[in-house]
Amino acid sequence: MKSSRAHSIDPASGPADLTRQLCNIPSVSGDEQAIADAVEAVLAARAPHLRVVRDGDTIIARTELGRARRVAIAGHLDTVPINDNVPVREMRDPDTGEELIWGRGTVDMKAGVAVQLALALELDAPVHDVTWIWYDHEEVASDLSGLGRALRNSPELFEADFAILGEPTNGRIEGGCNGTLRARVTLRGKRAHSARSWMGVNAIHRAGMVLAGLSEYEPARVVVDGLEFREGLNAVRIEGGVAGNVIPDLCVIEVNYRFAPNKSVEQAADFVRDFFRDADAVDIVDAAPGARPGLDAPIAQAFSAAVGGEPSAKVGWTDVSRFSALGIPAVNFGPGDPLLAHADDERVPVAQIEASWRALREWLRVNN
Amino acid sequence: MKSSRAHSIDPASGPADLTRQLCNIPSVSGDEQAIADAVEAVLAARAPHLRVVRDGDTIIARTELGRARRVAIAGHLDTVPINDNVPVREMRDPDTGEELIWGRGTVDMKAGVAVQLALALELDAPVHDVTWIWYDHEEVASDLSGLGRALRNSPELFEADFAILGEPTNGRIEGGCNGTLRARVTLRGKRAHSARSWMGVNAIHRAGMVLAGLSEYEPARVVVDGLEFREGLNAVRIEGGVAGNVIPDLCVIEVNYRFAPNKSVEQAADFVRDFFRDADAVDIVDAAPGARPGLDAPIAQAFSAAVGGEPSAKVGWTDVSRFSALGIPAVNFGPGDPLLAHADDERVPVAQIEASWRALREWLRVNN
Repeated sequence: MKSSRAHSIDPASGPADLTRQLCNIPSVSGDEQAIADAVEAVLAARAPHLRVVRDGDTIIARTELGRARRVAIAGHLDTVPINDNVPVREMRDPDTGEELIWGRGTVDMKAGVAVQLALALELDAPVHDVTWIWYDHEEVASDLSGLGRALRNSPELFEADFAILGEPTNGRIEGGCNGTLRARVTLRGKRAHSARSWMGVNAIHRAGMVLAGLSEYEPARVVVDGLEFREGLNAVRIEGGVAGNVIPDLCVIEVNYRFAPNKSVEQAADFVRDFFRDADAVDIVDAAPGARPGLDAPIAQAFSAAVGGEPSAKVGWTDVSRFSALGIPAVNFGPGDPLLAHADDERVPVAQIEASWRALREWLRVNN
Repeated sequence: MKSSRAHSIDPASGPADLTRQLCNIPSVSGDEQAIADAVEAVLAARAPHLRVVRDGDTIIARTELGRARRVAIAGHLDTVPINDNVPVREMRDPDTGEELIWGRGTVDMKAGVAVQLALALELDAPVHDVTWIWYDHEEVASDLSGLGRALRNSPELFEADFAILGEPTNGRIEGGCNGTLRARVTLRGKRAHSARSWMGVNAIHRAGMVLAGLSEYEPARVVVDGLEFREGLNAVRIEGGVAGNVIPDLCVIEVNYRFAPNKSVEQAADFVRDFFRDADAVDIVDAAPGARPGLDAPIAQAFSAAVGGEPSAKVGWTDVSRFSALGIPAVNFGPGDPLLAHADDERVPVAQIEASWRALREWLRVNN
């Protein structure tokens, strides 16, 4: 069901209330037109200092002040499917009494978009030029991504020295992300009747050495730009066998390698091919590069100081890697607990929204 | 297509010609009525010295001479499907010039049945009482076996001191057979996102220790009643995995254990449970007992002396184990190369048929 009613956004009462308004515009992936229309309308009405470009349901809004540095600040407009959790409700944490907003999108990631949109509307002279980006189709297959599409269509709009993605991080900086690669590792043997097993070669038994190697392997912890990334190398699927009385001649193991962002996809593929060099074949099935956190750049260090706390490495793969692939260091920073993303009871503390808003505002207003 | 035409058998020209006649009565499993009718008719016409009982398409024909010992001599009447290889053709071995009979059933096992039927008709006073058995449904699921059915219906007809199954053995004695058992070995783990693999336990990696144990295991060679049986313990199937980005919580390995006939099924199951004691579960899927060759009994030794050559252990499972389960030592002995059984170009040397016929005849005629 598509939502066709026009929604209007009123940012006057601050980022927490803006979170509620954005959540209450249904915007499941593929159904982002209404929320994109509302964002475009409020920018047209209240942000003459921004140059606004629309690409499908992705909106790019740029200051063009001729600052020495430019930062891209991005968030996705879509959510995973609604499950009786829109409109949002007010709640208090039963333990702490903390004020919460409960419902679909509160964590992933309307609170982050609200912080960004409030500042886009308010700050007509930030210390860095800013490219605000709100995009469609993040929660679905990567090739549908509105960010990917807009980057292909208008790469010049995305040039920047640093990028901040508003994915939920509990209001801390989570830098970069691991890359991921899947490979099929093939072991071959020779069929025989199992009553005469010595006439054959058992491909499943040969897989034992591969799995033993995986069991013994201690995944690396790699420090990149000051953050520690934990790698992982795992069998995620195994298959082999012909019949209950046949020595099997084929066993295939699918492995997933999560690799630190100091490695390219090609280096990761080389590592995997070498690790499984005793197998009969290693075929790379798919791969996505990691992203360096880039926290050693002065602009990033100033952002980190404004946010406070200790930055850490982002564990999962996020769209920061799209910026990283363009050579733009990128971090995740947004309100909300990432472990609640996609949960039917996702909920965000109002205080976290406000703290994220204050930190980002401080960094964009005070010369650093 | 069922063959309903009545066929008649003329044994006058010897076991090789009888082989041709039996092969030329189509008798694929389920379609044994015509050949059973023909066998019953020739016994009725020419073997007043035998008491004949019919059970479906299984025929049991007994001498009842009050001899000190009784031997059961059995063969199945059915074949695997015909593939343009009936009626049989005459051939010569291109290398040796040896005379061959070519076509479906020549090896498995009309030549063996012909040797038996020729002697059943001829020998009205064998030195041991003989229970001749020709049965249906051997080439299909075990629970359809005509031998199994007749044994359940009339166990008293099958009492014997020794049994000979006419399966192809190149005219040598192959004693007993290994038992076989299949088990499912289960390894469990704990699911996690593969980006946070350290939060989970990889069940496929845990399977590595099991497969490494299988790789290293040196299957036993066990001498039973003077024959060496080679065991086998093999993974025949493996399966595990949830999705490309999930640490798998389950891996199941199916193993096949071929065990020497000095072990009972229960002992074999205990061995397998102990071998895989580090797994989370070991479930026995199915099992069939082996058969002791029983070649240490005097009656068997005399048979072995009559046949000549060195007896060896039968590698595959055969119906000898049905006799063995009744406590009757049993061997395989018949013309034809077992590696040609079920081949579309199966063929048997005429000289082998005649040699098998002579050996069995000698043993049944000369007091020993």
